[in-house]
Amino acid sequence: MTDPTPAAPWPQPLDTSVTPRFAGLPTFMRLPVMDPADVDVALIGVPFDGGVTNRAGTRHGPRELRNQSSLVRRHHHVTGRSPYDLVRVADCGDCPTHPLDLMESLRLIEAHYAGVAKTGAIPITGGGDHLVTLPILRGLSKGAAVGLIQFDAHSDTYDSFFGQKYNHGTPFRRAIEEGLVDPRRMVQIGLRGSVADPASFDFARAAGVRMIFIEEFVARGVDDVMDEARAILGDGPTYVSFDIDAIDPSQAPGTGTPEIGGLSTREAQALVRRLAGLDVVGADLVEVAPPFDPSGLTAMTGATVMFELLCVVADSLAARGG
Amino acid sequence: MTDPTPAAPWPQPLDTSVTPRFAGLPTFMRLPVMDPADVDVALIGVPFDGGVTNRAGTRHGPRELRNQSSLVRRHHHVTGRSPYDLVRVADCGDCPTHPLDLMESLRLIEAHYAGVAKTGAIPITGGGDHLVTLPILRGLSKGAAVGLIQFDAHSDTYDSFFGQKYNHGTPFRRAIEEGLVDPRRMVQIGLRGSVADPASFDFARAAGVRMIFIEEFVARGVDDVMDEARAILGDGPTYVSFDIDAIDPSQAPGTGTPEIGGLSTREAQALVRRLAGLDVVGADLVEVAPPFDPSGLTAMTGATVMFELLCVVADSLAARGG
Amino acid sequence: MTDPTPAAPWPQPLDTSVTPRFAGLPTFMRLPVMDPADVDVALIGVPFDGGVTNRAGTRHGPRELRNQSSLVRRHHHVTGRSPYDLVRVADCGDCPTHPLDLMESLRLIEAHYAGVAKTGAIPITGGGDHLVTLPILRGLSKGAAVGLIQFDAHSDTYDSFFGQKYNHGTPFRRAIEEGLVDPRRMVQIGLRGSVADPASFDFARAAGVRMIFIEEFVARGVDDVMDEARAILGDGPTYVSFDIDAIDPSQAPGTGTPEIGGLSTREAQALVRRLAGLDVVGADLVEVAPPFDPSGLTAMTGATVMFELLCVVADSLAARGG
Amino acid sequence: MTDPTPAAPWPQPLDTSVTPRFAGLPTFMRLPVMDPADVDVALIGVPFDGGVTNRAGTRHGPRELRNQSSLVRRHHHVTGRSPYDLVRVADCGDCPTHPLDLMESLRLIEAHYAGVAKTGAIPITGGGDHLVTLPILRGLSKGAAVGLIQFDAHSDTYDSFFGQKYNHGTPFRRAIEEGLVDPRRMVQIGLRGSVADPASFDFARAAGVRMIFIEEFVARGVDDVMDEARAILGDGPTYVSFDIDAIDPSQAPGTGTPEIGGLSTREAQALVRRLAGLDVVGADLVEVAPPFDPSGLTAMTGATVMFELLCVVADSLAARGG
Amino acid sequence: MTDPTPAAPWPQPLDTSVTPRFAGLPTFMRLPVMDPADVDVALIGVPFDGGVTNRAGTRHGPRELRNQSSLVRRHHHVTGRSPYDLVRVADCGDCPTHPLDLMESLRLIEAHYAGVAKTGAIPITGGGDHLVTLPILRGLSKGAAVGLIQFDAHSDTYDSFFGQKYNHGTPFRRAIEEGLVDPRRMVQIGLRGSVADPASFDFARAAGVRMIFIEEFVARGVDDVMDEARAILGDGPTYVSFDIDAIDPSQAPGTGTPEIGGLSTREAQALVRRLAGLDVVGADLVEVAPPFDPSGLTAMTGATVMFELLCVVADSLAARGG
Amino acid sequence: MTDPTPAAPWPQPLDTSVTPRFAGLPTFMRLPVMDPADVDVALIGVPFDGGVTNRAGTRHGPRELRNQSSLVRRHHHVTGRSPYDLVRVADCGDCPTHPLDLMESLRLIEAHYAGVAKTGAIPITGGGDHLVTLPILRGLSKGAAVGLIQFDAHSDTYDSFFGQKYNHGTPFRRAIEEGLVDPRRMVQIGLRGSVADPASFDFARAAGVRMIFIEEFVARGVDDVMDEARAILGDGPTYVSFDIDAIDPSQAPGTGTPEIGGLSTREAQALVRRLAGLDVVGADLVEVAPPFDPSGLTAMTGATVMFELLCVVADSLAARGG
Repeated sequence: MTDPTPAAPWPQPLDTSVTPRFAGLPTFMRLPVMDPADVDVALIGVPFDGGVTNRAGTRHGPRELRNQSSLVRRHHHVTGRSPYDLVRVADCGDCPTHPLDLMESLRLIEAHYAGVAKTGAIPITGGGDHLVTLPILRGLSKGAAVGLIQFDAHSDTYDSFFGQKYNHGTPFRRAIEEGLVDPRRMVQIGLRGSVADPASFDFARAAGVRMIFIEEFVARGVDDVMDEARAILGDGPTYVSFDIDAIDPSQAPGTGTPEIGGLSTREAQALVRRLAGLDVVGADLVEVAPPFDPSGLTAMTGATVMFELLCVVADSLAARGG
Repeated sequence: MTDPTPAAPWPQPLDTSVTPRFAGLPTFMRLPVMDPADVDVALIGVPFDGGVTNRAGTRHGPRELRNQSSLVRRHHHVTGRSPYDLVRVADCGDCPTHPLDLMESLRLIEAHYAGVAKTGAIPITGGGDHLVTLPILRGLSKGAAVGLIQFDAHSDTYDSFFGQKYNHGTPFRRAIEEGLVDPRRMVQIGLRGSVADPASFDFARAAGVRMIFIEEFVARGVDDVMDEARAILGDGPTYVSFDIDAIDPSQAPGTGTPEIGGLSTREAQALVRRLAGLDVVGADLVEVAPPFDPSGLTAMTGATVMFELLCVVADSLAARGG
Repeated sequence: MTDPTPAAPWPQPLDTSVTPRFAGLPTFMRLPVMDPADVDVALIGVPFDGGVTNRAGTRHGPRELRNQSSLVRRHHHVTGRSPYDLVRVADCGDCPTHPLDLMESLRLIEAHYAGVAKTGAIPITGGGDHLVTLPILRGLSKGAAVGLIQFDAHSDTYDSFFGQKYNHGTPFRRAIEEGLVDPRRMVQIGLRGSVADPASFDFARAAGVRMIFIEEFVARGVDDVMDEARAILGDGPTYVSFDIDAIDPSQAPGTGTPEIGGLSTREAQALVRRLAGLDVVGADLVEVAPPFDPSGLTAMTGATVMFELLCVVADSLAARGG
Repeated sequence: MTDPTPAAPWPQPLDTSVTPRFAGLPTFMRLPVMDPADVDVALIGVPFDGGVTNRAGTRHGPRELRNQSSLVRRHHHVTGRSPYDLVRVADCGDCPTHPLDLMESLRLIEAHYAGVAKTGAIPITGGGDHLVTLPILRGLSKGAAVGLIQFDAHSDTYDSFFGQKYNHGTPFRRAIEEGLVDPRRMVQIGLRGSVADPASFDFARAAGVRMIFIEEFVARGVDDVMDEARAILGDGPTYVSFDIDAIDPSQAPGTGTPEIGGLSTREAQALVRRLAGLDVVGADLVEVAPPFDPSGLTAMTGATVMFELLCVVADSLAARGG
Repeated sequence: MTDPTPAAPWPQPLDTSVTPRFAGLPTFMRLPVMDPADVDVALIGVPFDGGVTNRAGTRHGPRELRNQSSLVRRHHHVTGRSPYDLVRVADCGDCPTHPLDLMESLRLIEAHYAGVAKTGAIPITGGGDHLVTLPILRGLSKGAAVGLIQFDAHSDTYDSFFGQKYNHGTPFRRAIEEGLVDPRRMVQIGLRGSVADPASFDFARAAGVRMIFIEEFVARGVDDVMDEARAILGDGPTYVSFDIDAIDPSQAPGTGTPEIGGLSTREAQALVRRLAGLDVVGADLVEVAPPFDPSGLTAMTGATVMFELLCVVADSLAARGG
Repeated sequence: MTDPTPAAPWPQPLDTSVTPRFAGLPTFMRLPVMDPADVDVALIGVPFDGGVTNRAGTRHGPRELRNQSSLVRRHHHVTGRSPYDLVRVADCGDCPTHPLDLMESLRLIEAHYAGVAKTGAIPITGGGDHLVTLPILRGLSKGAAVGLIQFDAHSDTYDSFFGQKYNHGTPFRRAIEEGLVDPRRMVQIGLRGSVADPASFDFARAAGVRMIFIEEFVARGVDDVMDEARAILGDGPTYVSFDIDAIDPSQAPGTGTPEIGGLSTREAQALVRRLAGLDVVGADLVEVAPPFDPSGLTAMTGATVMFELLCVVADSLAARGG
C-alpha cells in the first residue's frame, strides 16, 4: 500500500525453502530488521516484567517469540494471502526498558511508541507483561480515547496491588482513568479464575466495559460473541490486546498467572479472524514467560497469534489504503 | 455458619495483595494450619502411592497441590462468593501413612478420618493414589452406605491385580462389598481407555453402578449427564471422588495411568459446579503424581478442582446450616 | 482368522496383571517379536528422519512409541473386543534404514515392505518422518493405485524443498505421480497452518484430492466429514496415514512442524473409529519426534492411535476373512 | 545453650523414620515454625528478586529451598553432631518484601532483621537475590563494621547498573561505603567469569578487600586459602554470604548469572567447614532461582549448604555460650 | 571360556555401524535376549522400588538402563578388549517382582537368582532400589559368606525404618545378620550426607565393616583406597554393589536420595577398574530412578558403570577359566 | 590491529549495563552483524547435522550458542583484556547448508569458508556436527597442511560408518588423507569412551597423531600435557577444533554422543588458555545439540569456550600484527 523507496526495500521473510528455518538470526517472522519509518506495520518487542506480582519471566518473552516465529510461514491458510504482499512489515527491534525501575520503564516505552506513532507505522507488540499496554497506549495516543478489545483471563482493572498503582493487574483501569481508552467501546473476552475481591470487577462494569466471562463465551460461541463485540467497537480506532493467558494453560503453560478452563487455540484464532476490517491502530501479544515454557509451546502459540493479528491488520490496511 | 471461638479464629487465606503468592509456606489455599475440630471443612493431604501398579509418585501429590494452590484466590468468579466467608476452612495437615506397608497405611488412614468424622468437619482430601478413597470411606462411615459420584478414566472396580485385593484399581469394588457405598446411588463419569479384561465392568454394572463412558458424555453434554447423575444421587449423603486422570492428559499429564480423549478442564469445572446443593459428606482429588508433572500444570489443575469442590461444599453447608 | 501353527503360536500381549507394565522389553503393545510371515498384522518401526527439513528426531520415534505402548491394554473400551483375539498381531521389529543416505533409505524401506507384502501380513507402521509413507506404498504396491486417507496438518504435496524432490513435504505428490495412490480416492483431514506458497495446494486440488481443512472439519463435525470420506474411499484397497501433527500440539507437542488449532485426541479417535469396515491394506502413524517430547505425551498419544488403527484393521479382517 | 521455657519448647526436625520426608509442610529442615525470640538460630526466607538485572526468579527461592531441605537429616556425617541438639533452631518464616518496589523492599528487609537482631537470634537466610545482603547487614548492624566472607562468582562491588545504585551487582560496595563491612576484614572466594569492565574490581581492591579468583583457589587448595581467610577475618564478628553461583553450574544450574568453572560442592562444603569457630553474626545463601532449576538440584545444593552453615554456627555458639 | 554350542550361539551386540543405535529394541548393550543357562555373564533387570522410603521410581530403572546402554560400544578404550570376545554375555530379561507386595518380591527375586546361580552364569544386575541386593545375595548364596564392596553415599546398615526391617536402608545389616556377607571382608566407599542418627554407623563398625567416607577418599585418592580395599577383600568370592548415588548428583541426578559432594564419574570408573582380577560372583548397579532423570544422564552413567563392571568380570573370567 | 574505515566501524558488543542481556537479537556475544571483509575475527554459525549417525540436533546449535552468549561479557577476568579492544570481531551470520543433502552441504561450507579466507578474517565457528570441520579446513586451505589441536571424546578418524565416508566420525581421517592437516602436528586431548573397534585408533596412530586419552590427561595435568602439545604444534599455522563432548556430560549434556568421565570446564578453560601465542588460523566449537540441552547449560558452556578461543586469537593477533 505504501510505495517503497529504493532506500527501504519491500521486506520479505526469508524463504523457508532456501534458508532452513533453523538457520539465521531469529527475527520476528524471519523478517529483516528495519526502522519503523520504512514500514507500514512494525513488529516490536518489549522485554519487561517489572509489573509482575507473582511469577516473573516475560522479560524473556520477545526473544522466544522471535525464536518460535521461525515456524510461521508467509501465507495464511484460510485467506491464501500473505500480509507481506500487502504491506511493508519488519522487525523493528526491542523497545528500551529499565530492568530495575518500573516508572522509568513506563517513560521509556511511552517515548518509544510516541516515536513509532510519528512514523505512521502500526505497531504489533510482543511483550512483556500486561502493564506494557498502558505506556503503549499513552505513546500512541492522539488525544481521543480509542476502543479496545482484550482477550484475557483477567480484567486487569484493579486499582492497585501492594499499594502500587502500576502493575500488570491495573493497566486498563489507568488507561480508562487517563482517557486513553473509551470504556464504552471496550470488550473483554475469556475472563475467568478465582479473584481476590469480588468487587474487583465493579470499576469496569460501572465504567461501561463489556466483560464476557468464559462461561458466557462457551454458551454463545465465537460468532455470536464477536457480533456483539464488533457492534460495541464500531468503526472507530481500536486497539487489540491479547494476553496469552486467555488461552488454556495446556496450550500456553508459560505464563505468570495461568487459569484452567480457557480459550482453545482454535477459538482464539477464530476470534482474532473476526476482527477483520476493524480500524486497528495497534495490537499486542503479552505475558509469554519463557522460564515457565520449557517446551516452547507458549511462545509458538503466541507467535502464531501475532501472525493472525498481522494478517488482520494487513488485510485491513490494504482494503483501506490499497 | 459455625460460631468461631476466640481460641479458634475464623480462618482466611493470606491476602495476595499483601503477602505475595510466592512468599510463605505453601499450605492448601494459603490457609492457616488448624485442627479439624475447629473448622467446618478440613483440607487434608494423604501422601500415599502404595496402591499403584505402574507409575508411582502420588506420595508427593499433597505437597505439590499445596504449592500450586498458591495460585488460587478467594472468590469464585461465577458465584462471586468466597467459601471462606461462608464456613471455616483450614489446612488440617497430612494424614499419617506408611511408606512401606500398604495394609498399615489403610489402617492409619481409616483411623485418621474416623477422628475427623468425630469433629463434624467435612474433609476434602488431596491424594494420594485412588486406593485412599477406601479407608477414607471406612473412616467416615456412620453405618449406612453413602452415594458416590466419581470422575475418572477408570472404573476402579477390578477384583484384584497381581493377586492383591487392595490397590488403586479396586477401591470401589471393595467399598461396595463392604457396604460403604450404595451402588444404586453411584455414578461414574469419563470412563475410557483400553482395558485388560472386557469383563472388568461386569461387577459394577451388575451391582447397579451407572457408568458413563466418555463417548456418552460427549454425545449428551454436561447438563444432560448431570441431570441424570443428580437424579441417581438424590438427597442422601454423597461422597465425591475426583481422579485427576478423568481430565485429558494434555491438561493433567502428571498422573500414573493417563488416557487420551478425556474431559477438558472446562467440562470438569462445569461438572463439579453442577454438584451444588448435594449433601456432600466428603470429597477427594486424587492421583496427582508430581514426578510426571514437571510443569506443575497437573497440580495446578488439581488445586483448582479442589477449590471448585470446596465452593460447592461451602455453599451447600451455608445453605443448610446457615 | 488364520490358523496358527505350533511353530507360530497365537501371540498375546503380556498380561498387565501378571507382568507389571514397567517390566520387560518395550515391544509394541508388549507383544512378542515375530516374523511377518507368522502374523496377520505386523507392527513395524521405521526409525528415520532423513526427510526432515527443520526439526529432526523422528529417528527415535519407534523406540518411544514402543515404550509408551506399555500403557495400552488389550481390549478396546467401546467395542469390548481385543484385536489379539481376532487376528495374529506381533512386533515385527524395525525396518532397516540408513542414517546418512536418504535415497538408500528409500530403497531399504521399499524392499523391506515388499517382503512384508509377500507374507500377506498387513503392516501398521510407527515412523519415522512422513517421507517413509512413499517407500512403504512402493513396497506394498501390487500395480493398481490404492485409495488413501491422510490425517495431517500439512498436505505434503509440495513438489520440492531446497531443490530436493524427496523430503517429508513431498511424499504424496510423488505417490500420485508414480501411480501408487489414486488421487480421486484420496482424502486429507485436518489441514491448517501458514504456508510458504498459496499455490502449494494447487497440485493436489487439480489431481482431485479432497482436502478438508480444520475449519471445515470444525464446522461439519466428525460424522459428516467421515460420511463424505468413506464415500470417496469406497470399497477398494485403502491406505491410512496418520501424521501425529494432525493432533493439536497441546496433546502432541513432540513433532517437527507443530501447528496450533489441531484435532483433539477425542476427535482423532472418533475419526479413526469411523474407518471401520474399510479394506485397509496398510497404515502408519508418523512424525513422533521424542527429543521434542520430554513428557512422553506425544508418543503415548501416538501409541494409542496405533491401537485404534489396529482395532479397525483387526475387526475388518475378522469380518472379511473370519 | 539457652534454657528453653515451657512456652517455647526445644525445636526438633520431624523424625524421618516416623514422618516420611514427602509428608508435611516443607519448612526449613522440617523444623517447627517459631518466633525468632524463642530460638538461638533463625532460619529466614527472603523471597525477593527486585535487584536482578538479567534472569529473575529468586523470589521463588525460599519456598524451593524449604522443599528440598526435606532431604537433609539431623546429624552432620563428619562431626556426628546435630545442630538441633546444641542450640534452638526453627523456621522463622519469610521476611516481608514488596514485589514491585525495590526501595520499599530494602526498608522492609532492614526493619525485619533489626527486629531479629533485637531477639539475639542469629539469622541464616535463604534468599533472594544478592542485594538482600545489604538490608540484612543494615538491620543487624550494631554500629561497628563487621568482617565478611563471601563465596561468589562475582565481586558484586559495582557502583551501579543502568544508572541504579541498588541491584544485585552492588551490595558490597554499598555495604563498605555505609560502614557496615570492614573491607580489610573482607574476603571473596571463587570469583570468575567475563566482566563488563576490567576496572570493576578496582574499588574493592583499593578498599582492601581480599579477592581470591577461582584460578588462585585451584592452585592453592581449600586449606591454604582458608588459612589466609581466617587470618584476615580474625576473631571479630563476621558475616558469611554464600552466593550459590560460586558453585559450578553443573551442580547449581538454577541461578541468574551462572559462570562455568566454579567451585565443586565438595570444595564448597570443605570451605564452609573451615569457618568453624568464627564469631558468625549472620549468614545467607542467596541467588537460587527455581524457574531455572527444573531438577531441583540447585535448591538441594543450597539447602545442604545452609545445613553446613547451620552446623558451623551451632558448634560455634555451643562452644562459646555452652 | 565356555564352549558355545550351536543351539546357543556366541552373542554379540548389534554392530553400531550397521544397525544405528536408535534402531531396534533396547536390550542391555544391544545384546540378544538369551537364557542364563547359555551364557557366562547374565545381565538382568530387577524393576522394583518397594523398599523406597522417600522418592520412588527405580521400578523404571531397568528399562532406561537398557535404553541408554544403546550408547555403549563393544570395546573398552583403556584395555582395548571387548568383554563379548572373552565370554558369552546376554540380556537375560527382567526378574519377576510384585508391585504391591514387598515380601513377595523378596521371595520372587531370591528364587530367580537361585535359578541363575544353578546355571553358573554370573549375574550383573540393573536395579531396582538397593533392597534388591539382599534377595540377590540370598539367591546366589552357596552357604559361605562372601566379601562385598559397596560404592554408595549411604551405609544402608540401618536396623529399620518406620518399624520395618526390609527397606532400601537396611539390606546390608540383614545380609550380615543372615551370614550372607562376611563383614570383615566388606568395604564401603563414598559415604556421606547428613544422617538421622549418629549411631546408625555403629552396627557396621562393630561388625568390622570398613567404612570409607568421601572425605577420607578425597584425601587419599583412588589407588590408596583401593589398595586397602583389595587387601580386605582378598581372594575369596566377592560381590560388588554399586549404588548410583555414590556418584555426585550433578552426574547422576535421577536417584531417590541424592547427596552433594559425591564421587565423580572419573573416580567411579577408576575405582571399578581397580577391581580387576577379583573373584566377582555377582554385581549390581542400583537406585537409578528415571522419573527424576529427565535428561537420561543418570541412566547413561549407570549403563556405563555396568559396562565397566562387565569388563572387569569378563577379564577376570577369561583370566581364570580361559 | 586493522585500521577500521568509516564504512566499517569498530564493532563492540552491546553494553550490558545499558541494554539488558535479555533484550535484543541474540547475535554471537551481542556483536553487530557484519561482513567478514570488515573484521579481523569472524564468528560464524554452521547449522548442520547431516553427518550425525545417532542423535541429531546440532543444526540448532548456532542459534542457541548465540542465545546463551548473551551471558558473556567483554573482558576476560584473568587477563583483564577485551578482545574487542584488540581486534575487530563481529557476528558474520550463518554459513549456507543443505538440510537434506550431505555432499551439497560440504560444498556449500567449503565455498563459504573459501570466501572468508579471501578476506583475511580468522573464522571462529559455532557448529554443527564435527563433520563441518572438514569443509572448513578445505575452504581455509592455502595448499600446505596445517597443524591441528582437537579437544574431543572421540578421535573421529574412522574410515566410514554405514559404508559412508563422510560423517561426524571421519572428518580428521579425510583431512589427513587430503593433506589438509599434518598428522605429525596434530594432537587430540580427552579421548575416551567405549569403541566399536579397537583398531579404530590405528590409522591415527600410524599417521603420527598424538592421542592423549583422558586417563593420561588426568595423570599428567593441564600444564604438562599442553607443554607437549605446544611442542608438537610448533610455530606453524594451527587450527583448533573443540568438540563440546570433550567436556563431561554433567557440564555439557546436550550433545549427540556423550561419554562420562570427561574434562571439567575448569580444565577446558585452562587448556584453551594455554593456546596463547599460537598461530591460530581458525577454530571451531562443535556438537552442541540443543534438543538434548533443555537447561541451556551446554550452549552456555559452548559460548564461554568460544569466548576463551576468541581471547586467545585476539591476543595473538594483537601481539603479532599490533
